[in-house]
Amino acid sequence: MKITAAEIYNSIEAIRSKSPVVHNITNYVVMNSTANALLAIGASPVMAHAEEEVEEMVNIASALVINIGTLSERWIHSMFKAAHHARKKGISVILDPVGTGATAYRTKTARELIKKEPPAIIRGNASEIMALYDDKSKTKGVDSAASSDAAIDTAQKLSEIHKCVICVSGPTDYIIDKENIIKIKNGHPLMSRVTGFGCTASALCGAFAAVEKIPFIATAQAMAVMGIAGEMAAGVSDGPGSLQTNFLDILYRLKDDDIKKHLKIED
Amino acid sequence: MKITAAEIYNSIEAIRSKSPVVHNITNYVVMNSTANALLAIGASPVMAHAEEEVEEMVNIASALVINIGTLSERWIHSMFKAAHHARKKGISVILDPVGTGATAYRTKTARELIKKEPPAIIRGNASEIMALYDDKSKTKGVDSAASSDAAIDTAQKLSEIHKCVICVSGPTDYIIDKENIIKIKNGHPLMSRVTGFGCTASALCGAFAAVEKIPFIATAQAMAVMGIAGEMAAGVSDGPGSLQTNFLDILYRLKDDDIKKHLKIED
Amino acid sequence: MKITAAEIYNSIEAIRSKSPVVHNITNYVVMNSTANALLAIGASPVMAHAEEEVEEMVNIASALVINIGTLSERWIHSMFKAAHHARKKGISVILDPVGTGATAYRTKTARELIKKEPPAIIRGNASEIMALYDDKSKTKGVDSAASSDAAIDTAQKLSEIHKCVICVSGPTDYIIDKENIIKIKNGHPLMSRVTGFGCTASALCGAFAAVEKIPFIATAQAMAVMGIAGEMAAGVSDGPGSLQTNFLDILYRLKDDDIKKHLKIED
Repeated sequence: MKITAAEIYNSIEAIRSKSPVVHNITNYVVMNSTANALLAIGASPVMAHAEEEVEEMVNIASALVINIGTLSERWIHSMFKAAHHARKKGISVILDPVGTGATAYRTKTARELIKKEPPAIIRGNASEIMALYDDKSKTKGVDSAASSDAAIDTAQKLSEIHKCVICVSGPTDYIIDKENIIKIKNGHPLMSRVTGFGCTASALCGAFAAVEKIPFIATAQAMAVMGIAGEMAAGVSDGPGSLQTNFLDILYRLKDDDIKKHLKIED
Repeated sequence: MKITAAEIYNSIEAIRSKSPVVHNITNYVVMNSTANALLAIGASPVMAHAEEEVEEMVNIASALVINIGTLSERWIHSMFKAAHHARKKGISVILDPVGTGATAYRTKTARELIKKEPPAIIRGNASEIMALYDDKSKTKGVDSAASSDAAIDTAQKLSEIHKCVICVSGPTDYIIDKENIIKIKNGHPLMSRVTGFGCTASALCGAFAAVEKIPFIATAQAMAVMGIAGEMAAGVSDGPGSLQTNFLDILYRLKDDDIKKHLKIED
Repeated sequence: MKITAAEIYNSIEAIRSKSPVVHNITNYVVMNSTANALLAIGASPVMAHAEEEVEEMVNIASALVINIGTLSERWIHSMFKAAHHARKKGISVILDPVGTGATAYRTKTARELIKKEPPAIIRGNASEIMALYDDKSKTKGVDSAASSDAAIDTAQKLSEIHKCVICVSGPTDYIIDKENIIKIKNGHPLMSRVTGFGCTASALCGAFAAVEKIPFIATAQAMAVMGIAGEMAAGVSDGPGSLQTNFLDILYRLKDDDIKKHLKIED
């Protein structure tokens, strides 16, 4: 599959004009920053986790993003319920398996989710993706302790089993399904010094999946935009504080030419 | 009722000198940003939601802000308990009915709250205010799908029934009670691209209600300050990221002359 | 004990090179900002509160920071469980008793924690520290209503009883144990207009305690770095919004010379 700068920008324009509702059941740490990233790109974020209302929120949403960064029992219950309803309704579910492999609780929750309610897109670092499959990998809390290369095989197997797109993110982002691999080499090391940029990438996958029906393309477009806005922001920032601010400003103003100029993709 | 720049600034000076405690039971997304806005204007924010302590927190507070942005059962229970105690104690309760109309859970909770524990001030967008009254309106998640004009009649009815001040916020903010309407035309479209600016407006209503005993005046003053600081910040910002930063800086430094120069009010 | 600029910088370099995992069970308001501060100094923050996983997270962590800023029953249960496990494993536990004295619920929780699972380090404002010991002090929500001087005697008693280091933070930070007092006079008044800077100081104590085995020294180093980065940031900021941004940038870039030039310590 070909990912072009022009098509990426088409999707951004679609997000800006339609302002799709993206429903997030996400962790406490990043709720504010991911909501702001979704607003900056032009989407309409909503955060709701109560069992009593997740189905109704899914009803008005064009994508559902589930992030297991700060788990507890009632939230897990709502995640399954919302994912089930979203799949029934036919909107894309994006899973961010934060910290899978770090604790049995996260690993079990994430594996059950992808088994019972396979998402359209899973985005995680190499350790997280490997831990979705078996117990051989190690994570360091919520940061990856594995190389992305090591995770590619696993991602292909997961993609085949669960019929979903896997993004292994890192210095190079790999977008993977049974038959395709795309590498995106945008981004900047300073991004790893801001909490929740991974979660923001998953939220952007939700925004793109709301307007682009092929999950593989939506994921590649979202990761490219994330990387491009991040590296443009890093270029004008003095550290991780200003990076956050500049990232939102740049995401909001992102132009056709910015994407053409910066896109580094290999397919 | 007349709202003047001089009186608005008097209230700001009162907040800065008294640093009133504003107790917030609010949603996860905006806790940090609303606490920062309250600190920037000079108030002393406290966030506490546990049933075990909300009454004691109300005891040291000069206003209580309830925001239903991320609901769950135990939090609702605490909201009722805190509101009841605040009304008994005689401090103003401000309600932000985030997402009312989007799900039955939110609509039911907000309607019960205003029935059993009528707040002094309700601030919401047009859709939310209309959904407090009946089921004819539509919302789009947490963003409004209705025009403010359509909500004015409803707001007047709600004000009469529940003896409270209603603020219908939007490009023009309407401050409404049974007998009065004031329009505030400050603000900037970029503010809608930052999460939680509506919630911040409600929190500022709490800060002003802590020093100005007439809720109608407190609401108008808070909304004017919100709009003025927002448009001043937008004027020096490159996007929604820097807008947030500049908004807090400007709120902190806001001068008499800034209000005189920018205030756009119609009564 | 002597605290030198050179040794402070050694600890920063150790944090940057080892990137120790700091496990936080903290309040909703500051999760994002403390995670960002930990990332900026070079540590690897993880937030996890579920009873099911706190012990496993402690297992991969080099320090545990417990902050009672937004309490509820299940979180309290997890705090005790995590603290118990951390002490058994031999990593430092840091307690931030936010709002102790403001409500009986917080006071009771904090006192039980230091009795049953005495932490290595307690950092709070004067009111909070005094309220850990008896009921004679007053707090104003989460802000201090007592002078630091008044809290020193109490801190010494607490230190002796619970065999821990106490930091009474304020315009001057006092690091106290049974036999030692160090005063750190860095910092800037504008820092009190940003929510969670106290919580960030406690989180940094966790980062330093992860690489410096003597809790008294780790606390003094962390408070010095907090104050130095804060005053350097205040010097280039227009208000509390830009202060936050600049603080993270400066923390990330902090050099040997910055510490030498700014350190104001009395022992």
